[in-house]
Amino acid sequence: MYKKTTFAIASLVMAMAAPAFGAEEASVGDTLIHLAYSIDTFYFLMSGALVMWMAAGFAMLEAGLVRGKNTVEILTKNVALYSIACIMYMFVGYNIMYGGGPNGFIPGLSFWLGTDNAVDAVLTSGGETYYSGMADFFFQVVFVATAMSIVSGAVAERMKLWSFLLFAVVLTGFIYPVEGYWKWGGGFLDNLGFLDFAGSGVVHLCGASAAIAGVLLLGARKGKYAGGRVNAIPGANLPLATLGTFILWLGWFGFNGGSELKISNIEEANAVSMVFVNTNMAAAGGLVAALLLSQLWFGKADLTMALNGALAGLVAITAEPLTPTPLVATIVGVIGGLLVVPSIVFLDKARIDDPVGAISVHGVVGIWGLLAVSFTNPDGSLVAQLTGIGVIFAWVFGTSFVTWLIIKAVIGIRVSEEEEMEGVDISECGLEAYPEFSSSK
Amino acid sequence: MYKKTTFAIASLVMAMAAPAFGAEEASVGDTLIHLAYSIDTFYFLMSGALVMWMAAGFAMLEAGLVRGKNTVEILTKNVALYSIACIMYMFVGYNIMYGGGPNGFIPGLSFWLGTDNAVDAVLTSGGETYYSGMADFFFQVVFVATAMSIVSGAVAERMKLWSFLLFAVVLTGFIYPVEGYWKWGGGFLDNLGFLDFAGSGVVHLCGASAAIAGVLLLGARKGKYAGGRVNAIPGANLPLATLGTFILWLGWFGFNGGSELKISNIEEANAVSMVFVNTNMAAAGGLVAALLLSQLWFGKADLTMALNGALAGLVAITAEPLTPTPLVATIVGVIGGLLVVPSIVFLDKARIDDPVGAISVHGVVGIWGLLAVSFTNPDGSLVAQLTGIGVIFAWVFGTSFVTWLIIKAVIGIRVSEEEEMEGVDISECGLEAYPEFSSSK
Amino acid sequence: MYKKTTFAIASLVMAMAAPAFGAEEASVGDTLIHLAYSIDTFYFLMSGALVMWMAAGFAMLEAGLVRGKNTVEILTKNVALYSIACIMYMFVGYNIMYGGGPNGFIPGLSFWLGTDNAVDAVLTSGGETYYSGMADFFFQVVFVATAMSIVSGAVAERMKLWSFLLFAVVLTGFIYPVEGYWKWGGGFLDNLGFLDFAGSGVVHLCGASAAIAGVLLLGARKGKYAGGRVNAIPGANLPLATLGTFILWLGWFGFNGGSELKISNIEEANAVSMVFVNTNMAAAGGLVAALLLSQLWFGKADLTMALNGALAGLVAITAEPLTPTPLVATIVGVIGGLLVVPSIVFLDKARIDDPVGAISVHGVVGIWGLLAVSFTNPDGSLVAQLTGIGVIFAWVFGTSFVTWLIIKAVIGIRVSEEEEMEGVDISECGLEAYPEFSSSK
Repeated sequence: MYKKTTFAIASLVMAMAAPAFGAEEASVGDTLIHLAYSIDTFYFLMSGALVMWMAAGFAMLEAGLVRGKNTVEILTKNVALYSIACIMYMFVGYNIMYGGGPNGFIPGLSFWLGTDNAVDAVLTSGGETYYSGMADFFFQVVFVATAMSIVSGAVAERMKLWSFLLFAVVLTGFIYPVEGYWKWGGGFLDNLGFLDFAGSGVVHLCGASAAIAGVLLLGARKGKYAGGRVNAIPGANLPLATLGTFILWLGWFGFNGGSELKISNIEEANAVSMVFVNTNMAAAGGLVAALLLSQLWFGKADLTMALNGALAGLVAITAEPLTPTPLVATIVGVIGGLLVVPSIVFLDKARIDDPVGAISVHGVVGIWGLLAVSFTNPDGSLVAQLTGIGVIFAWVFGTSFVTWLIIKAVIGIRVSEEEEMEGVDISECGLEAYPEFSSSK
Repeated sequence: MYKKTTFAIASLVMAMAAPAFGAEEASVGDTLIHLAYSIDTFYFLMSGALVMWMAAGFAMLEAGLVRGKNTVEILTKNVALYSIACIMYMFVGYNIMYGGGPNGFIPGLSFWLGTDNAVDAVLTSGGETYYSGMADFFFQVVFVATAMSIVSGAVAERMKLWSFLLFAVVLTGFIYPVEGYWKWGGGFLDNLGFLDFAGSGVVHLCGASAAIAGVLLLGARKGKYAGGRVNAIPGANLPLATLGTFILWLGWFGFNGGSELKISNIEEANAVSMVFVNTNMAAAGGLVAALLLSQLWFGKADLTMALNGALAGLVAITAEPLTPTPLVATIVGVIGGLLVVPSIVFLDKARIDDPVGAISVHGVVGIWGLLAVSFTNPDGSLVAQLTGIGVIFAWVFGTSFVTWLIIKAVIGIRVSEEEEMEGVDISECGLEAYPEFSSSK
Repeated sequence: MYKKTTFAIASLVMAMAAPAFGAEEASVGDTLIHLAYSIDTFYFLMSGALVMWMAAGFAMLEAGLVRGKNTVEILTKNVALYSIACIMYMFVGYNIMYGGGPNGFIPGLSFWLGTDNAVDAVLTSGGETYYSGMADFFFQVVFVATAMSIVSGAVAERMKLWSFLLFAVVLTGFIYPVEGYWKWGGGFLDNLGFLDFAGSGVVHLCGASAAIAGVLLLGARKGKYAGGRVNAIPGANLPLATLGTFILWLGWFGFNGGSELKISNIEEANAVSMVFVNTNMAAAGGLVAALLLSQLWFGKADLTMALNGALAGLVAITAEPLTPTPLVATIVGVIGGLLVVPSIVFLDKARIDDPVGAISVHGVVGIWGLLAVSFTNPDGSLVAQLTGIGVIFAWVFGTSFVTWLIIKAVIGIRVSEEEEMEGVDISECGLEAYPEFSSSK
């Protein structure tokens, strides 16, 4: 709402208002480029906004699945990790991931300090005018936050707030961008033929690998496996968890749909549409499968399993939401939903305590999604997919483990037993989530 | 984030990057078609995403308006019905609705198994290149789910989960697509001049008709009419119900706005804008009217009535959000809001127990919306509107009643008295929504 | 989903479907205008929908930060004020704000009764075909509601519902549109060189100025400053407050991003992208800064301060989200976050009781945002910014104070002491927000 300052690019406005283009055929071509650029940029910004919205989804999902006494802390972690991810990715991450490098392994380490907005003049691809560099950054930065959001659920109810946020600095600034460079930045995984459309591996397996490293060092919540049994610790607010799942489902249309990167011609518009449909079908398939399985297995229609089933469907289709038919996409989701339930049960048997099931949803099913590409995409190669899975897991798990270890050694990662009993909300944040009605203290 | 496989359609990219189109005027025309196609497809996908979001709105609205002990089950119903709607509509519904038929009454019954994505090459309309077939499917499928979401609220707190989901299979796969075919698929209601822009009848009256059939067979909740009085059974979480209403309001911009089906020229862009404004004004009018009426009638500013007033305004304008001026749209909404309050009171007097007021909001006001078209659209005919209302109600109520009857006979539709007392969450889902703070058990 | 009535504008459809434009170069130019118009209108509608969503954000934020016994009333205020804002702005506000006037001070007072939808033919700017007038109205109307939403939080837990809504009529119909005219309607503040891209002043300072007038006349909540101390009155539902903040954050991409007003060429698409990135970075900076400050100052990572920090970052960047680099935008947000914490503490010391911190977030930080423009935009002038701040505050505070005074004299603005103790939900709305689990009654 303001007449903006003039940029260097010649304005097309006059030409567009002219009654006819007769004498200026060149400007018709220019205007077409402007319009396509505008559509692709707008599509990118809307997709990015939807992915940003996923941060709210993770926050609500996790807040609903923990106990009332640990709710403020997990909310704080979620809002803070999103902010840290944005800042770190601006300072170093984006440049590491997309700045090229001497070879496909070691990325460039120049810093993009956000001091220059000339980056936004024009992005080109093969000589073609494309879309806004800033829109690209916006879309990319919300992905980083997604990877980090996965971690917070798995380490919930017992990890120190500031230790977690310190880890977020390292993951979003360095660990994620490096493996992101290997695939999406044109590094060696990409050259190898490893396929990962929107990040079953680069984002979801990454988050899960970092999570499992943290959980192994952190140990289970007090009482979770007391008496040699797996004791259920029910979440305090299931409507919130359901809302979170719906938010994630909606946001995923931006996550997968935006990863087509272009919509401004018939071919690309059709591709984006196919991605939307397949994303939706996989989630639906995963939900129904997990719900049926929980009914058959446990004798109850377990809502939390159904929600994890939907998320499993979404994670599974993320590696390749374009080439399958909707029926095949549904099946990919169904298998995701069928995998996530036993995976959650198995991890509990193995005493790996993941309060929200994040490792199963994003790790186990992320791997399934990556493997499925070798069946659903004619260009997929099982060897390349396995290599990608191995490399991402090894890199992220390894670096995360070391990072967690250092943080543990220096400031500790686990709250005291007393604080855990009382709930981390009071000790870490000095607030209660539901001061008037919770009785869990 | 991935170089996609090449489709058959020739890429316009090179042409667009060319400095001038001089020698290739044909390709200018092609590019214009590509851009329009892209805009319309993107608009369709965004609209569909907004309508999908309405599923979350219904879930939150209903979860907020039932008691804590029945919250998990209604959440489960909502997430599962959305998924079932997607799967059934992919398998049979879409083809029934839009596959044509031997005459305007009996639809084609070929199945679209989702096995082919060539459907997405190009949709045309009168020889004109239009928009993505998959985007069309995506937009349509989220409408089916809306119709089914209406049912879950009315039968809340006493219906068996799996009986409900079985009904969802039938409604979304068959009942809805058939009447949808009669209007939007080009069947006899359309030929008759029945007008229903975005579905006051096809979607909302449909949902309400199925709901009333279920409620009649199901009976009222225990205690609702005990002692010859209408006993209020307050919802457990009104912020959630308010959030649900806001979500529905937002999603309705996609519901009505997307139903214009095109935005890529001045005429259509103006039309979509008018639809957005009128949708918003009708909701505002409905809310204020219901709030004032509840203050005058009951002496209290009843939030739940205000929320239902907003929804009533939205349902009322849905049959014709384009031709009225914003003032007239506001009035259409106001009348919707004034109707919904006495309708809710009257249904309770008649002992038709609808915990969330869905029959009043979507049925009674849906009928008002359809009738209003004869005043607000010069092409509207009262006879055609009445015919449409009668046909939709008769078809959906009749087939639903039979379906509910069969389900009742085979597996039953109502939980036991004991389960109802304890709450259906424990018996059906094995979980509590708010294990730490609810005292309603 | 309906063949729409034909408008006067000649359809471009046939021309677009033609295989070549060879003989009709004029129509190529026309089609380009159509496409640009369509893109800009669609972008405007999506932005407006995002801003409308902010109404839900304010409702959830405020409902989460008050006590359970006052939750229904604040929800009712929020849904009703949005509706009132839409109706009043349609009747008089839009015309006052954008209808021109005899000079830059006194606006035209013709009424746009919404009786005519020809306004939507075409908006032009300097002879250029632009975008839909209705889309413009839609985008503008959701801004008015935002200004009013700010007030409801500050006067929460003690103001009469209908007195508040009466004030909403005056603010949204008259007070806001007049100062809006002075800046965005081309009035004297605009001529003076006062810069306010998306409304740190016109919207946020306006809301805060009206709020402070109300709070001064209303007094503090019972017990807030009892015993000479500042007694914390914790909010009942912090996940809801967090959700509200995320909704506002998401909606702000429409608020600031849409205020560029155009996206259909490279220059504008780049500008909108920059605005998205800067908006996001400022929020991230504000959140981290407020969280760190609260940890250092209070020894706790205070979630409510972090949320207010994010909102402070958003308010701060709103006056100029285009010209700063992302790094500078982050810093603008950081300063906003650093200001909001002491401001909240200081207002409490001064016994100005603002339950949600709205005056600090939108007023104090709104002023910071306006001042920052003189550093971040080469065209900014400190004198003009100070003048704008003074004029907006004086006008809104003055007229609001008088309005509140009159309402107080005629029907009163504060509930009785008894009603305040019991909670305003029961006395005003006859409902409880959480009838099953709240223990605050």
